Amino acid sequence: MISLTPELAKESETPLYDQLYRYIRKQIEGGALPMDERLPSIRQLSAHLMVSKNTVEAAYQQLLSEGYIQSRPRSGIFVLPMEQLPEVEGESGSVKNRRFEKVKQAAGERGRADTIDFEYGDVELGLFPVKAWKKCLSDAIDERLPEVIGYGDRQGHLGLREEIVRYLYQSRGVACSADQIFLCAGTAQAISLLCQLLPLTERIAMEEPGYNGVRAVFTNHKKEVVPIPLEEDGVSLEALRQSGANVVYVTPSHQFPIGIVMPVQKRGKLLHWAYEQGGYILEDDYDSEFRYQGQPVPALKALDRSDRVIYLGTFSKSFLPGARLSYVVLPESLADTYREGLQNYSQSVSPLIQTAMYLFMRDGAFERHVRKMRKLYQTRHRVLLRAIYEQLGSRVGVIGQKSGMHLLLDVYGCDCAELIELAAERGVRVYSPMRHWMNPAECPRSYVMLGFAGLREEQIREGLERLRQAWFG
Amino acid sequence: MISLTPELAKESETPLYDQLYRYIRKQIEGGALPMDERLPSIRQLSAHLMVSKNTVEAAYQQLLSEGYIQSRPRSGIFVLPMEQLPEVEGESGSVKNRRFEKVKQAAGERGRADTIDFEYGDVELGLFPVKAWKKCLSDAIDERLPEVIGYGDRQGHLGLREEIVRYLYQSRGVACSADQIFLCAGTAQAISLLCQLLPLTERIAMEEPGYNGVRAVFTNHKKEVVPIPLEEDGVSLEALRQSGANVVYVTPSHQFPIGIVMPVQKRGKLLHWAYEQGGYILEDDYDSEFRYQGQPVPALKALDRSDRVIYLGTFSKSFLPGARLSYVVLPESLADTYREGLQNYSQSVSPLIQTAMYLFMRDGAFERHVRKMRKLYQTRHRVLLRAIYEQLGSRVGVIGQKSGMHLLLDVYGCDCAELIELAAERGVRVYSPMRHWMNPAECPRSYVMLGFAGLREEQIREGLERLRQAWFG
Repeated sequence: MISLTPELAKESETPLYDQLYRYIRKQIEGGALPMDERLPSIRQLSAHLMVSKNTVEAAYQQLLSEGYIQSRPRSGIFVLPMEQLPEVEGESGSVKNRRFEKVKQAAGERGRADTIDFEYGDVELGLFPVKAWKKCLSDAIDERLPEVIGYGDRQGHLGLREEIVRYLYQSRGVACSADQIFLCAGTAQAISLLCQLLPLTERIAMEEPGYNGVRAVFTNHKKEVVPIPLEEDGVSLEALRQSGANVVYVTPSHQFPIGIVMPVQKRGKLLHWAYEQGGYILEDDYDSEFRYQGQPVPALKALDRSDRVIYLGTFSKSFLPGARLSYVVLPESLADTYREGLQNYSQSVSPLIQTAMYLFMRDGAFERHVRKMRKLYQTRHRVLLRAIYEQLGSRVGVIGQKSGMHLLLDVYGCDCAELIELAAERGVRVYSPMRHWMNPAECPRSYVMLGFAGLREEQIREGLERLRQAWFG
Repeated sequence: MISLTPELAKESETPLYDQLYRYIRKQIEGGALPMDERLPSIRQLSAHLMVSKNTVEAAYQQLLSEGYIQSRPRSGIFVLPMEQLPEVEGESGSVKNRRFEKVKQAAGERGRADTIDFEYGDVELGLFPVKAWKKCLSDAIDERLPEVIGYGDRQGHLGLREEIVRYLYQSRGVACSADQIFLCAGTAQAISLLCQLLPLTERIAMEEPGYNGVRAVFTNHKKEVVPIPLEEDGVSLEALRQSGANVVYVTPSHQFPIGIVMPVQKRGKLLHWAYEQGGYILEDDYDSEFRYQGQPVPALKALDRSDRVIYLGTFSKSFLPGARLSYVVLPESLADTYREGLQNYSQSVSPLIQTAMYLFMRDGAFERHVRKMRKLYQTRHRVLLRAIYEQLGSRVGVIGQKSGMHLLLDVYGCDCAELIELAAERGVRVYSPMRHWMNPAECPRSYVMLGFAGLREEQIREGLERLRQAWFG
């Protein structure tokens, strides 16, 4: 057995599992634990370190979810290969809140070639695993031609569904079977199919603000959408109870667009609400892979003991928007109804994409990619927070910075339309989050939205410098 | 100028354009007109042969639509390369109609390994252009990475839409612009989006029988579907007028599943109905590429002078079900409304598939493939008709044999459920078309459905021999 000898401080405020996780991660990153090295079993390591099996399991779980290690059926837990990654530069600054005066009018050119675009939804192209993805596509055609030519399984490629089962268990604590998983061509299509094939009630509750793309699909299916205000810890349960709805759409791992991470206590209460109502929770876990601060909170679906959560996942954020590949995990009690309705529909995702994605996950490339991107986005996130602190300091508040690929700025006392205008004159694009409010008048005028996943560090720094010039002269 | 010297018989019953088309096709097939040879312009050839420009244009149109020649912008009309294709074996037999007695009970084994499956929707895998398609995918990634990684244009890849414009004009006579084209992930998704984004009325008329997949989508969008009976030449206009609907879904080029080709006169009347109503016709042109008998009839959309036709096309039949790629051509008056609604939706088709398809069409590979498959399916179609004649003779009627990838058998006096059972015992799968009737009781009990596109000639012959044994001992 390999030697793992962490110095675990039982009196420390850092939980033991976290210390163990950090220790093993360091060993892997430093090369002390090379690729394909087999790790001791949970039982072995807990005996060796004289800690509980829970502690070891939690540490392994974290390493698995971040793609440092991989569990191979019937053979054990192995170290995955490391890529060379950009180092995280500097620590994030903390952002103080203080009111500030009106923005200063700034002159500047428009439509510059070097425009820096903080658009949400962009991903980094530079680290895309071109070679591995091409090989998966090529292998899919060479070795599985009949599989990729036809219409494919209505529910989706079985192997891919099984890989998703494994991934969801390791990274999100969700225990489900491939039978409950249905592949879709993006979240809008998923919501549309849910509306078409399930007996959802006509009234649907949604977080206010909430993702406007999903709201549009509900509305286009003639659903009555009831906006439920947010509290500090997420959707208001009182307002939800009063709404009369028994289906609610939420984004608990990173509320869109506000960024609240719903605490586990609140999750319990929300699940209880659904149980009492005999209703359903639509949990959209769109960017849960990218978490930078605080402890991971298990998905609602992972805590769901009464079969009340419809879970929505996507590969658009974690891997490739251009795969147009997402999935739904249905409660067991709804899966058959949905499958029956599906008898009249073909699968919308190209079997070629599905099979390639299956191979990509099966070979561990997906987990490696997620780990790589998490590190990259974490770096960019820190660079962004630091640049905000350095350039804008206490004139802005930062909202929703715990995770994800975007955050909101509250530019105290300013008006978003004007801020966007001023930024554009300096060659920076920032966005209004207003369209995500069902009642736009309630969107604070001083909020602007910044996506950062597609921008390089120097672009982020330069962008924030320009924003300071644009907004504060 | 190359020498084209057909002997055109002006007194013949065969139209001049048809004689000219056959002559040029023979020259190409025989090698007298080699690949990349430039053909004379319409003006030149009409002057040379002393026939009208219409005659030459019609002949060229037919050659274009069958993939023998290609029009290249600003350079002229060129001969496309010929592949080696299976020769058509024998002539098709004509099938006489006469009533027959009850089927004879037959014993036989079930679940045989050599089961011959006449399932509709299968396509031939053997001639799939693996190399060309792989190259398109590979080029898309190598040369257009940013294009294939992101979400892509909501409406669909512009280049691909332009290729579709060209193809529709050449093969179906449809004149439209790329602005009117919207890419979708299959026909069900197309119908769903039309229901979601357009102000279609709540009542929709459909051919009875009609494609059940589309009917299900309407129903799942809470539309009231009114069945309109078929007459000899297609949907009954009288019943349509009485239905109170102002939107109708039709399959005029090859009524599904009955196979009626709607005559051009009837098309005019249907268009007039839509014009009078201020209504819309949904024209599903799903298998128009595969036409074996009679003159081509232009698409409804090609005849539509009052902007009343919503045209649905797909690559599932003509190229690759696994591309999950279809398209809608909207009337100009609806395109903006639809586009506006689309602002809240991402494109569902993977940009990788779209870009590869664009390259595949741009390079002429798509037209070559369609031509190749048309020849192949035509051969199989003839083999099937001959085998039906030889094996089943006058005990069956053949319905809808002019085109497409399936036909119906009317096995006189027999019951479909029993026929399916008997066939299964002999290792043949045939299908009931009943689910395409909204009122299944109206489906003649003696109808069975045979798809043939995915079966080799010897399988078709063997299949029909087994059917004779199964049904008539």
